[in-house]
Amino acid sequence: MLRENVSGAVIRRMPKYFRYLDELHQNGVAKISSRALAECMGLTASQIRQDFNCFGGFGQQGYGYNVETLMNEIASIIGVNRKHKAIIIGVGNIGRALIHNFDFYKCGFNLIAAFDADRALCGANIGGIQVHHIDELEKFYDKTPIEVAIMTLPKAPAPQMAERLAGMGVRGIWNFTNMDLKMTNKSVMVEDVHFADSLMTLCYRISE
Amino acid sequence: MLRENVSGAVIRRMPKYFRYLDELHQNGVAKISSRALAECMGLTASQIRQDFNCFGGFGQQGYGYNVETLMNEIASIIGVNRKHKAIIIGVGNIGRALIHNFDFYKCGFNLIAAFDADRALCGANIGGIQVHHIDELEKFYDKTPIEVAIMTLPKAPAPQMAERLAGMGVRGIWNFTNMDLKMTNKSVMVEDVHFADSLMTLCYRISE
Repeated sequence: MLRENVSGAVIRRMPKYFRYLDELHQNGVAKISSRALAECMGLTASQIRQDFNCFGGFGQQGYGYNVETLMNEIASIIGVNRKHKAIIIGVGNIGRALIHNFDFYKCGFNLIAAFDADRALCGANIGGIQVHHIDELEKFYDKTPIEVAIMTLPKAPAPQMAERLAGMGVRGIWNFTNMDLKMTNKSVMVEDVHFADSLMTLCYRISE
Repeated sequence: MLRENVSGAVIRRMPKYFRYLDELHQNGVAKISSRALAECMGLTASQIRQDFNCFGGFGQQGYGYNVETLMNEIASIIGVNRKHKAIIIGVGNIGRALIHNFDFYKCGFNLIAAFDADRALCGANIGGIQVHHIDELEKFYDKTPIEVAIMTLPKAPAPQMAERLAGMGVRGIWNFTNMDLKMTNKSVMVEDVHFADSLMTLCYRISE
């Protein structure tokens, strides 16, 4: 499958396609034209075709796309079928909110453990996920290598933790620390969820 | 101040500038060149100058920027000094996590109340914020108009709630429902925090 020179903007739209197609599929829609898909997603039909062409293109123009087939193709491009192993570091409010409410499995991940620096929390079971002490991290990893760590810990220990994870061999970090992590190992992918940047963008827009 | 034709990408970088300048200021840095600022932010000096030119440009090239002045200019562009009134709708895990941990004030907002559909929660005080029943929303708004609503409620009631807020006169929605809200009133700004899209983007990147 083609995958070269796919721009960041196209990559960011793939989950949105998946989300919409999944909903259409659940609503029993079997076929959809690029025009109708574009309309419900707030894009243009030509943009959709261009996006899909980055991956070799799929579906038959004019006849519309088979929703289930297209959804599965995109799922496979994103890799949501891979169920990468993930751990969560920090079980404060955000960590707990994610454990309880977020569907990791649907997004391609299998959340297998949580870690925290607070010894009082160790051994606890939060929403089916066992909490280990952060000192156990390497020992745990040696037995069960994980691909991704979700960082929901405070800012101060975050940079060192990111380097520690990279050193262990973690391939991706989902970063909720509200700070930019500068990784020595550039092959570790960091995806930021910057609440402050998001809210300040809204602040700008309503202040205009 | 110039503000026309500012692209979405530039708008999204303004909070990041503010965040970095605030940190430099807190660390006692008084002056910084566009080159050094670019380096620590992972941008180029020319991009920074272009971004600032959208707002008329500030600082003296060659002499560097005065950190505090620049920070204040950007704060005023974003509007973080306005302290817009905000309410939060839905005090589940995400709602509580935001109330307890997120610095609304620093991002330009004054969080004044919370609402929930669960009568058992009404009257409760969460981190200094009083929880009202959702039926009280209009009555509350009549006395205390708010600019922004933070939607941390489930998906199902979300579209109707968004329209209700727009009808009341709310100008912005910070959307944590993980669904795209299609507003009838296009002047209401919606800023999405799509956890699923973010994690699936990471999934793609580590699957490459």
